[in-house]
Amino acid sequence: MTEELRRELSEYVRKVQDTITTALAALDGQAFREDRWERPGGGGGITRILENGHVFEKAGVNTSVVFGELSEEFAPNLPGEGREFFATGVSLVLHPRSPMVPTTHANFRYIEKGDRAWLGGGADLTPYYLFEEDAVHFHRVFKRVCDYHDASWYPRFKSACDEYFWLRHRGEARGIGGIFFDELEPDDRGIAFWKDAADSFLESYEPIVERRRDEPFGDDERVHQLRRRSRYVEFNLLYDRGTVFGLRTGGRTESILMSLPPLVRHDYDIEPHPDSREARLLEVLRNPRDWIPQDESSPIAR
Amino acid sequence: MTEELRRELSEYVRKVQDTITTALAALDGQAFREDRWERPGGGGGITRILENGHVFEKAGVNTSVVFGELSEEFAPNLPGEGREFFATGVSLVLHPRSPMVPTTHANFRYIEKGDRAWLGGGADLTPYYLFEEDAVHFHRVFKRVCDYHDASWYPRFKSACDEYFWLRHRGEARGIGGIFFDELEPDDRGIAFWKDAADSFLESYEPIVERRRDEPFGDDERVHQLRRRSRYVEFNLLYDRGTVFGLRTGGRTESILMSLPPLVRHDYDIEPHPDSREARLLEVLRNPRDWIPQDESSPIAR
Repeated sequence: MTEELRRELSEYVRKVQDTITTALAALDGQAFREDRWERPGGGGGITRILENGHVFEKAGVNTSVVFGELSEEFAPNLPGEGREFFATGVSLVLHPRSPMVPTTHANFRYIEKGDRAWLGGGADLTPYYLFEEDAVHFHRVFKRVCDYHDASWYPRFKSACDEYFWLRHRGEARGIGGIFFDELEPDDRGIAFWKDAADSFLESYEPIVERRRDEPFGDDERVHQLRRRSRYVEFNLLYDRGTVFGLRTGGRTESILMSLPPLVRHDYDIEPHPDSREARLLEVLRNPRDWIPQDESSPIAR
Repeated sequence: MTEELRRELSEYVRKVQDTITTALAALDGQAFREDRWERPGGGGGITRILENGHVFEKAGVNTSVVFGELSEEFAPNLPGEGREFFATGVSLVLHPRSPMVPTTHANFRYIEKGDRAWLGGGADLTPYYLFEEDAVHFHRVFKRVCDYHDASWYPRFKSACDEYFWLRHRGEARGIGGIFFDELEPDDRGIAFWKDAADSFLESYEPIVERRRDEPFGDDERVHQLRRRSRYVEFNLLYDRGTVFGLRTGGRTESILMSLPPLVRHDYDIEPHPDSREARLLEVLRNPRDWIPQDESSPIAR
């Protein structure tokens, strides 16, 4: 059973990786290159990367299947008794060149540790300029996926996303959120939801790229983007559990840190002009919003 | 006694800040600007920053005096019973524009927590291109300071520096080291050494800037510098205890993260060409070196 589930889900993440990289390469006009790596303690992964593309300045879509024994020091950080573990997942971070196109991240993983097994994942959007219709579209796609399986999930996973991607030293969110779930039971419903969510990523993001890729921008917008990217770096290195998990379990450094934006400015004490577009973004990051009316129903037909 | 020592050392770090910023402003040709901040829980600090100078792309020299009560969660991370704490120190990070001039960091702090009190600090050098005579000069200055007070200190503090500034996920050091000490007894000898070390910073670094500031460089060297800076970011956000201490004890975010380099490239899977100058630097970072013969004696006259 477990062996079967491991195979099923690790094959699924590979299929998701293929579908997504094929679509993104078509969107960009440039192909991904691939690095395969092996983990000394057991398992390995496939890293696909696209740098200096037409749309994407840096885009990574990774899968891995890793297993073995966690260190005595790290093991207590995860649920479940014992140190034996198995993990498979797909993880992507897309950093567009244009500040008008949002950065996005998604991750779908299955983890076993000792006597426990669970699903986790989510998807979130990090705009540099706020287009409300983009935020609403992104949330609506994942609300529909959640609602189909359990009406209580979207509000829960949306809040969990806002909480998880919170830079507490700045009192601001990394982006406008999305969904985040962890320790979800890998029963039939959980697995069906997890697959649906992964399969919905392209629908959540592609239309936004199409809408924003030709928006004009200048040097000021580019500088704003490079400065905002510093918050992405801060989050990933200070708080992200996936980054720590990867680095502490002997994952491949280059595949893990591929999430970092290609070019970043760490300028001192930047505060946007009041009433500017930059300030409007910050306002939303400091006060996370509900993007969809709580009572909006999702179409069941898919 | 304690009250007296607190005053003495917090005044000393202010004097060091004045001396160093005066000298660096003269070296650069541009003045520092100053921000004073207060910490809600008690104390505050003075941040001096120079951005887009002639020599320094970003330079920060900070002092702070903070006190109050550590959170229950964070307190066990430091020695000493109880949660009451007092900390004062000067901390500087200098990021030159030219890749031929090394980045440097120094920090001298005095901390009390519960029933314990100690001195800590050090100075280290992060070159982008290796000039051996610069590394030797930097180490020699601090070896002399150590040797004057205790012949066992330089080897110990030099090794501690190599260990502390180690990026274990990459198997490389942040730079070519220097000295690092912590939990040093704040007795007469400890305090005299701590003051001498702080007073020696300019002598360790200024001559290197003078020697390298007019070395020619081009786009390739600049790109190499921006890529190496990513390791500085990784170290400070993943491992640096001072950064974590500051962020977790309600320090001012902008003053703490001022240590991050101004412009950074996070490129995927970079490895320098064999036999290049970039590869020679990496070789030394991966295999930390003794820069001074173990038996070289320091001149006692100062």
